[in-house]
This record gives sequence, structure tokens and C-alpha cells, in this order.
Amino acid sequence: MTSRTNTKYTEIQDVQGRPLLLDFWVSPFCMRVKIALNEKGLQYEARPKDLFGGKSELLLNSNPIYKKVPVFLHDGKPLCESTIIVSCIDETRSSPPLPPPCSYGRAQALFWAYYIDKKVFDACGNIWRCKGEVPLEAKNEFIEILKQLEEALGDKDYINDDTFRFVDIIAISLTSWFFSVEKIDELTVADHCPNFPSWMKRCLQRECVAKVVPEPEKVYELVLMFRKIQGID
Amino acid sequence: MTSRTNTKYTEIQDVQGRPLLLDFWVSPFCMRVKIALNEKGLQYEARPKDLFGGKSELLLNSNPIYKKVPVFLHDGKPLCESTIIVSCIDETRSSPPLPPPCSYGRAQALFWAYYIDKKVFDACGNIWRCKGEVPLEAKNEFIEILKQLEEALGDKDYINDDTFRFVDIIAISLTSWFFSVEKIDELTVADHCPNFPSWMKRCLQRECVAKVVPEPEKVYELVLMFRKIQGID
Repeated sequence: MTSRTNTKYTEIQDVQGRPLLLDFWVSPFCMRVKIALNEKGLQYEARPKDLFGGKSELLLNSNPIYKKVPVFLHDGKPLCESTIIVSCIDETRSSPPLPPPCSYGRAQALFWAYYIDKKVFDACGNIWRCKGEVPLEAKNEFIEILKQLEEALGDKDYINDDTFRFVDIIAISLTSWFFSVEKIDELTVADHCPNFPSWMKRCLQRECVAKVVPEPEKVYELVLMFRKIQGID
Repeated sequence: MTSRTNTKYTEIQDVQGRPLLLDFWVSPFCMRVKIALNEKGLQYEARPKDLFGGKSELLLNSNPIYKKVPVFLHDGKPLCESTIIVSCIDETRSSPPLPPPCSYGRAQALFWAYYIDKKVFDACGNIWRCKGEVPLEAKNEFIEILKQLEEALGDKDYINDDTFRFVDIIAISLTSWFFSVEKIDELTVADHCPNFPSWMKRCLQRECVAKVVPEPEKVYELVLMFRKIQGID
């Protein structure tokens, strides 16, 4: 759409005809793209980011606004913003449909996706980036957000309805960071949101999710390393 | 989708069969919903918020998460988040289509809509809410955001392409606050983004926009009042 897009990126080729994902294993935003691709049975090539290698030329050219993964390159065109990438994957291969097809159901699914995007990762960051004791305000905010999501879940199996779908894909990847938050803030999500763990378990048992979402302990190792690098610990 | 939605809101009726918009004249998020409705030729009833009357029961019940306008009530169901409402209006009445129909064009349109939502209003607020001199950082951030949008505009008539569409609707409503930013920060948008004013003029000449977007001076009056109430001036 931008002149920049039209002129600079035409030389980008997909790897052996498959779409290319600029990836970072611990990024929940990358995870959700991979879950959606797996759910749809689409082949792709993931190019992992080198943690200490700086940002690649391809990343900087493909996402000049944010300079962040994930970037999904398909038919020589870069897509950015994980929620948009997931929606686009859904449009490209419509079965199984990710957001509910009816207009109101779609709008509600998008509402929760926006809510999760705006709130959850930042609330996690306000805790794991804390130097010293975590302020009660940060802890309460995190819990309140999860309580809203738990209310959206209600007594259903999944957040959207009784099928694993769009909002579950958007949300489940972020839960891989909850263990780190629990360790640093000495809280237990299940104490505040008793229905959350069974929803998480249901999602994590799905093959498309299981092969993407890392062990929470692995994420925690990285969080501890980030904290060291940033002089927090 | 939530049990809350299913149980509480069934009694809400549209006004005389028309959709109801919980509105506030100076909110750019409300403006974009009205522009989309006008563009589609849809009738609606706008219920203006009383600035000093507190939040209505209907607003609190319809948007329990954010408790903010706009809320669009259609067929007894509340929709929240202006960008989602605009998308939903577009799906309900597909002609003229707002986001470009092709998948990549849609994704790009959504990318810019997200960008505008994340950046522009907050950047304005960082200036007009300033007590004393506006920090150079806030001014530069505002200008940089507009420059990115100007680059997306390029030499086209509208941001999406050569037709007034989705991204223009999302963006144009926010420009009604630029005059206030210019007055408070003593800057001139046109000095930094020379193509912006002609795009604004083109959009504002459209009837669907002209009858919704208030005079910048009226917004400025309100901004000055907000500043007084908040003890900034």
C-alpha cells in the first residue's frame, strides 16, 4: 500500500516456494502465527532470530515501522503485526475457519484479541522487569486482566465458544510467560482464576500448540538472563 | 461470546429499529464510526454523552471492559472498539467496500489502522496535556508519526489508494485535534508534512466527513476547558 512497500520488497523470495517466518522462539507473537499455520496445515520456513546477532537486513526492510518479529513473507510480500498475520492466514485458507464466520461473533473475537494485545504482555512485563519488590498495583492489574479473560471463558471449553479458535490462539501463546511472572511475583494464577489452568491444559494438549509453545521453565531461564543483562538482578 | 454478553444485553432495543450510537461529538473514535455509517448511507440514532452527567447505565452495561464511547448497538447487540465497529459496518453493508477486498491490501490497511490507533491520539495527548513547555521528545514523536503516515500516503490521493477508504476514515477524525496540538506546541504540521494538508482537505470536502468532523477551533475550546479542569493552565 505504501510506495515504500511497492518499490523495495519485490526481490524478496519465499524459501523454496514456502512462506517464510522471521521468528523468535520465545516471542508469544511469533508463537501465535506458528500455531495458526499449524492449525491450517500450512508449510512454512521459520528463520530464527539470533538473540545476540542484531536485527537482520531482511527484518529491517520488511518491517521498517516496528523493526520487530514476527514478519511473515508470502508471495514476496511482508506482513507484520501478529494478529493481522493470523487473520490473513485465515483468509488465505478458510478451513477450518479461525474467527467465527458471523459478523457479530467475529467482532467479539476481534474485541478480545485487541484486549489481549493491549493488556496481557505489558502487564507481564510490568512484573518481570521489576527491580526489587513488585508493586501491588502491577500484580493487581495482571490478575484483573486474567479475571476478565476468565469471565469471557465462562464455563465454555474455549474462549470463543466450544472450539479452539482465534481468541484461543491469540491468548494461549502468552501463557508461556505466566510461570515467569508467578516465580518473580510469588503469585499463583490458579488461586485467582481457577478455570484458567484447565483451559490452558486443553489448548496445550493440541498438537498445533504443543509443538510451538516452549516449556515455561525455558522461558523463565531467558527471563532471568534478560533481567541480568538489564541489570535488574 | 461471553456469558455476560449473552445474559445481560438482550433487553437493549435499537431506537425505532435503527442502530444506536453512544456518542461524544469531540471523540475521534466516535467520528470514524459516524463517517463509516454516512459513507455507507446507513441511518442511525446518535445519543450524545453528557459531558458532566457521568456515564450512563447503558454505556456501563454495554462496554463493561472499557466503559467508553463509542458503543454501537445493533440488533440488540453492543459493539465496542471503533476500528472493529467500522469493520463490522463494512461487513454488514458491503458496498462501497471500505478496506480493499484483496487479502494483502486488507492486511496493509489493518496494519495502518493499528498503527494510527496505537500512536496518534496518545501522541496528541502527550502535547495537549502538557503542563508548561512541551518536551522536545513529545513534539518529535508526534511529527515522526505523521511523517510515517505521510510516507504511506506517498503521492496518492488517499492513504489506501486513490479512493477514500478504511485507513482514511480511521485517520481523518484524529486530524480535528491537530489544530489544538499546533496551538499548544506552536508547531505547524504542514512545515513537517507538506502533503498532509491537501489530503486532509480532500477528505474533509467529502459530505460524509464534513458533517461529522467538528471545527478545529471548537475542539480547541474544549481542550482549553479540559486543561483548566485538570489544573494544567
